[in-house]
Amino acid sequence: MSMTSTNADAVALTERLIACQSVTPATGDVFAALEEMLRPLGFTIDRFTVGEAPDGPVENLLAWRTTGPGPHFAFAGHLDVVPPGPGWTSDPFTPQVRGELLYGRGAVDMKGAIAAFVAALHGLPDDLPGTISLIITGDEEGPAVYGTLALMERMAARELRPDMCLVGEPTSTARLGDVVKIGRRGSVNMWIRVAGTQGHVAYPHLADNPIPKLVRILSAIEAEVLDEGTDWFQPSNIEITDLEVGNAAHNVIPGAATARISIRFNDRHSGASLIDRIRTLAAADGGTVEAKISGEPFLTQPGALSELVTDAIREVTGLDAELSTTGGTSDARFLSRLCPVVEFGLNNATMHKLDEAVSVTDLQDLATIYGLIVRRALAG
Amino acid sequence: MSMTSTNADAVALTERLIACQSVTPATGDVFAALEEMLRPLGFTIDRFTVGEAPDGPVENLLAWRTTGPGPHFAFAGHLDVVPPGPGWTSDPFTPQVRGELLYGRGAVDMKGAIAAFVAALHGLPDDLPGTISLIITGDEEGPAVYGTLALMERMAARELRPDMCLVGEPTSTARLGDVVKIGRRGSVNMWIRVAGTQGHVAYPHLADNPIPKLVRILSAIEAEVLDEGTDWFQPSNIEITDLEVGNAAHNVIPGAATARISIRFNDRHSGASLIDRIRTLAAADGGTVEAKISGEPFLTQPGALSELVTDAIREVTGLDAELSTTGGTSDARFLSRLCPVVEFGLNNATMHKLDEAVSVTDLQDLATIYGLIVRRALAG
Ligand SMILES: [Zn+2]
Ligand SMILES: [Zn+2]
Repeated sequence: MSMTSTNADAVALTERLIACQSVTPATGDVFAALEEMLRPLGFTIDRFTVGEAPDGPVENLLAWRTTGPGPHFAFAGHLDVVPPGPGWTSDPFTPQVRGELLYGRGAVDMKGAIAAFVAALHGLPDDLPGTISLIITGDEEGPAVYGTLALMERMAARELRPDMCLVGEPTSTARLGDVVKIGRRGSVNMWIRVAGTQGHVAYPHLADNPIPKLVRILSAIEAEVLDEGTDWFQPSNIEITDLEVGNAAHNVIPGAATARISIRFNDRHSGASLIDRIRTLAAADGGTVEAKISGEPFLTQPGALSELVTDAIREVTGLDAELSTTGGTSDARFLSRLCPVVEFGLNNATMHKLDEAVSVTDLQDLATIYGLIVRRALAG
Repeated sequence: MSMTSTNADAVALTERLIACQSVTPATGDVFAALEEMLRPLGFTIDRFTVGEAPDGPVENLLAWRTTGPGPHFAFAGHLDVVPPGPGWTSDPFTPQVRGELLYGRGAVDMKGAIAAFVAALHGLPDDLPGTISLIITGDEEGPAVYGTLALMERMAARELRPDMCLVGEPTSTARLGDVVKIGRRGSVNMWIRVAGTQGHVAYPHLADNPIPKLVRILSAIEAEVLDEGTDWFQPSNIEITDLEVGNAAHNVIPGAATARISIRFNDRHSGASLIDRIRTLAAADGGTVEAKISGEPFLTQPGALSELVTDAIREVTGLDAELSTTGGTSDARFLSRLCPVVEFGLNNATMHKLDEAVSVTDLQDLATIYGLIVRRALAG
């Protein structure tokens, strides 16, 4: 492939976005920069800020362009970045190319992908009918309360409903194009608490030790088999991530004991069904459960959309991408309520790390792949 | 019984000891006061101070009087007191009689008992052959590293070896004379640690969660039956007293998990045998064990000494004392290596508490009981 003008843009556009400091929750400059990139391409832009401290305010940008009747293809992503932390070789918000790599916070997660998408738009023919939209939030790395969910409300109000969506998260692991995500596991944390009666170890009959009860509950949880996995998902998994009693006195039987568990689960379960299940187990030994669902699972059955993406990847990189559902959660868990969603983006090796960097070649290839995907999506 | 001059002394002597502030580790005034009480009675006194901060220096007092060939009767106790804490009705180191009670820190634990013993000595006939000794430490309430053990070394050096020993700890619970202790359970604390490999909950195959292993170890410990008790002891008991992981990150599998257990055990076991046993259980799931033995169990088989004590109690109070081995540890665990030991003293209801107080009548009766015991012990 050769699309030189587009390719050049992807790197320059990434640099421009990196230069706008945008630690979660992001507002302002970085959105103005993206708006300036999209306006000349004929997009209508709706920028809006929602929420209050500590989780907000969060800025979001919804952009769309309709060139005639046809499919609606959406690209989704985030302009916020995780805090850089100390110790970078060069300033994290001053983009710098050294050799083959462009350094800067957000280079791969995911300002590079947004830049690649904008670059891809530059290369599209003018006569392609349909709708293209960009769903861009300033809070994907944080609690995500005022981000993609707010964008989806705004889309509903404007009657914008995509037929398919590509989320530009960095899914590639060893080489650009090796992994495409067609789903994500759900995630729920639970706190199991057993109350007892404090007392002295010399007089156990006057006390009621909560720890043996908690141990029985945790044994029962460890014995649970949630499922054996599915065609597309690993088996659901429970990890006990913390134990807490906080009893400094050697001779005292404590009055309460707590454990925290984290469950990553596939589409055989919902957050609510798992909370019920653990609550029943805990209640058998007097435990109570509080829970927080971080995300429900989703699966886009392999089909037209995933083939569109893997075909484009194969043409540019020669790789047969693996369809995966592993890893943490992403905003795709929300967007999957609207339409089929797949995730594909840059190599995630340095995401969230010191000296985050993207390969200049990968950035250019990604713009080419995104261009092929959009073109064919609208062609139907 | 009527021994008026002795009885009057017990209260006055207790007041004098309370007035000497002597929070653990104790030195100085309170020992000088006791020395002044014993010198006129013909005792040889060896006061010595050992140890360094933080557990020392600790003063100890060894006193002995030999009036001819005969049995050696030892009285043991401590002049240190636990900190009074705020909120007392009257100053804890200014003895005050209000109604029937004498208030002050150490009134029952155990300056009152030491005063009662001195009062009892005043009432003894001059022609009683044998040896009487007092083994008095300034650190029973603390780590007890420089206390009774140091006194026992000093006794060995002086070739003082008692035939029987009465420890004046407050063993009475509802009424003076209702409980005599003929043994104590041993006590050991253990820390069970399981190391794993930290990781992300989304990638459990890259981590090694130590918590399920710790849960299995604790389940196995809970299933242990150490014994069913003996004629004189309750069943040995294991309590899990703490759990600690300290993992604040919800999405992280922790790298280590720790539990603390406390075992109170009878004379079917030793601290070392229990450490071995728990270590074997823990090793089966990769756990390691650190341990600290606070005391080995001891039992003075009911016989001559306990009868001497219960007979004297019955004559003064009319009560048939129960022979018990319950409660925490005391310095009797050390002294039992030398000779048969029983413990008997004042009502422990207010020991270690605010407004610690002793019944004036109990103090007088205790002096009478101690007097009968010593007289008959030396009479053989
Ligand atoms: Zn991201
Ligand atoms: Zn005591």
